[in-house]
Amino acid sequence: MNFRNAVIALSTVVLTQICLAQTSLPLSMTEFTPAETNQRGKLFPQVNAEGRVRVSISAPQASGVQLDIGGKRYDLVKDEKGIWTGESLPQDEGFHYYQLIIDGAAIPDPGSLCFYGAGRLGSGIEIPAHDRVFYALKDIPHGLVSENIYYSRLTGTWRRCFVYTPAIYYEDNTSRFPVLYLQHGSFEDETGWANQGKANLILDNLIAQNKAKPMIIVMDNGYAFKPDENKGQGSSAQGASNFEEVLMNEVIPMIDRRFRTIADREHRAIAGLSMGANQTMRILMNNLDRFSYYGGFSGTSNYPDADEIDPGIFLSGKFKDGEAINKKLRLLWLGLGTKEPVPFPGSVGAFRNMLNKQGIRYVYYESPQTAHEWLTWRRSLNNFAALLFR
Amino acid sequence: MNFRNAVIALSTVVLTQICLAQTSLPLSMTEFTPAETNQRGKLFPQVNAEGRVRVSISAPQASGVQLDIGGKRYDLVKDEKGIWTGESLPQDEGFHYYQLIIDGAAIPDPGSLCFYGAGRLGSGIEIPAHDRVFYALKDIPHGLVSENIYYSRLTGTWRRCFVYTPAIYYEDNTSRFPVLYLQHGSFEDETGWANQGKANLILDNLIAQNKAKPMIIVMDNGYAFKPDENKGQGSSAQGASNFEEVLMNEVIPMIDRRFRTIADREHRAIAGLSMGANQTMRILMNNLDRFSYYGGFSGTSNYPDADEIDPGIFLSGKFKDGEAINKKLRLLWLGLGTKEPVPFPGSVGAFRNMLNKQGIRYVYYESPQTAHEWLTWRRSLNNFAALLFR
Repeated sequence: MNFRNAVIALSTVVLTQICLAQTSLPLSMTEFTPAETNQRGKLFPQVNAEGRVRVSISAPQASGVQLDIGGKRYDLVKDEKGIWTGESLPQDEGFHYYQLIIDGAAIPDPGSLCFYGAGRLGSGIEIPAHDRVFYALKDIPHGLVSENIYYSRLTGTWRRCFVYTPAIYYEDNTSRFPVLYLQHGSFEDETGWANQGKANLILDNLIAQNKAKPMIIVMDNGYAFKPDENKGQGSSAQGASNFEEVLMNEVIPMIDRRFRTIADREHRAIAGLSMGANQTMRILMNNLDRFSYYGGFSGTSNYPDADEIDPGIFLSGKFKDGEAINKKLRLLWLGLGTKEPVPFPGSVGAFRNMLNKQGIRYVYYESPQTAHEWLTWRRSLNNFAALLFR
Repeated sequence: MNFRNAVIALSTVVLTQICLAQTSLPLSMTEFTPAETNQRGKLFPQVNAEGRVRVSISAPQASGVQLDIGGKRYDLVKDEKGIWTGESLPQDEGFHYYQLIIDGAAIPDPGSLCFYGAGRLGSGIEIPAHDRVFYALKDIPHGLVSENIYYSRLTGTWRRCFVYTPAIYYEDNTSRFPVLYLQHGSFEDETGWANQGKANLILDNLIAQNKAKPMIIVMDNGYAFKPDENKGQGSSAQGASNFEEVLMNEVIPMIDRRFRTIADREHRAIAGLSMGANQTMRILMNNLDRFSYYGGFSGTSNYPDADEIDPGIFLSGKFKDGEAINKKLRLLWLGLGTKEPVPFPGSVGAFRNMLNKQGIRYVYYESPQTAHEWLTWRRSLNNFAALLFR
């Protein structure tokens, strides 16, 4: 696989069910404004207070153009100049993946920025959330997000992680900081958390209000294939599981070498969303001597099962001694949206039942009215990060 | 204007003449391979050793699909599955902007990464150059590219610069480094140099071979509008000229505060491409007490005129005293591609004539067989950076 240079764009994983209903709606009377996820100077796409998305594109010779968002396709209507316009039903607040379809061609909207997720770099749109202030861009000190390229000998490939360093990191050359290792979900990559996740803005805001300890955040790519392995994405268990080796043997030593970290377990946290939550839970339980904080956002290691978990078997019995886990882990944190689809409520529920049975303490957070989407995970980070390193 | 978060993608400014010839070519027999600028896992677009570009997209109901590259449109041909494929004439080696046109809709190629230039975030393609080793990704120490967000009180807007810090920056917490301020061209932004420019890889390679001094590079956005000014892009002289105020009064102090710089004129260089070369030449001549190295890549401040320059009038007579300039400037460097279009050869030529007449020393570099495009500028940086801070 060719390694890509520097700064790229990204998209959300939207694991809603694909439903190919086609609808053509009359234009809404509630005012539309350009989305904050638009390219500079682009009037479309637009959103309104109901959460409807309006798109517009010039395609004079096309016979059919659709907006594909939230599992539905909406037919656009052509005007006399060959410009097609149309809108969706109201969408959940937060960030969503979408695309346009022109005469059967699924393509990015030329008005949208680029986001990596759902296995492609394509369009995304932000529906302003009622609680968006926690990730708003405010006039406070901002940290940096750095692209860190490294050669992985374990996989024989070039890899990249993004590293958030808080504003205070630059106030002197000696202070050292704890580290959160934060992973994305399936069909995403190392750009997700810094781009559509807004991890840097969330931490900048928490830190400025003294609601979180200043920390470094490392955001790597959860897929890691060795040279003789089939290179794919998605649910490739092997590719995902090599990540533990890369993280423990290559990334953490590199981060501890390059950045002013406090390199002990009391100052090292690990978390992830969906597939990332599953991965990092396994990594945590294999490395309790290296991490003392865990966050699982919309995911657990019994995914996708909702069956009762036998702690004697699950993850090789690592959850058998509940008291020992309570002693070692400073925080076990789980989050989930209230609108998440099957199988997440079931599998996360079964995992919580197991924790309860074992007497293992944990914090559980529910994000109201969001599904398996990025607003759930921004809110999860916002809540989780405030509890770290205290 | 809404401020965008974190890591984004970019495109090249290609100032070739737009020529709307339409061609449909038989498929080339010389082997095609996926371009290095493709999204991961995408087979198309492809390039071959002749520099032809082959694209392919599924558009079953479309009646016409074209590849738009290098000032020409090429008709694609549809197969029985509704997949359209076609290819271009040979392109110059290096990076090029392009797009697809489906039934009149100008859209990004879903197989391409995203690059900002030509006023949009869209598709780009790399034709491997015979001398590409100087920007190749090698197993050597790599620096970081950091996104630095800041609020500009001068313009009342959020701004962003990208900062390259060499690998050696992280070997201790005390060593200090010189700084190159490096600007993009018109219709581009602060992502250009780090993305399609490969500035970080070029410097990593030079530094690893001891061909350049380790340095910090600051890449900001050359457009800067005050609150009551018309916000646009392109040749907006006012927006471009506010940049000097922002750079001198906000960016440089911020960089000197946040990074371990050597904050004097002997250790500060400024350069740019095209519009950026024009801007930075003016900034240099207004601030000779702050910079001692200058690089103008494919641009000068007499753009677009080819008339003889009167040094008594040009830039308020700042070039009148050639001997004083020779004493102050450690390096005045100019670069140009051999295939650049009008007006660049004429205006750069007129500027060189003026320097010759004034007895002002300068280095002149010609990039063989490249036009007003990114390979010219990568080569320019590669040559220019090696001469700095010695």
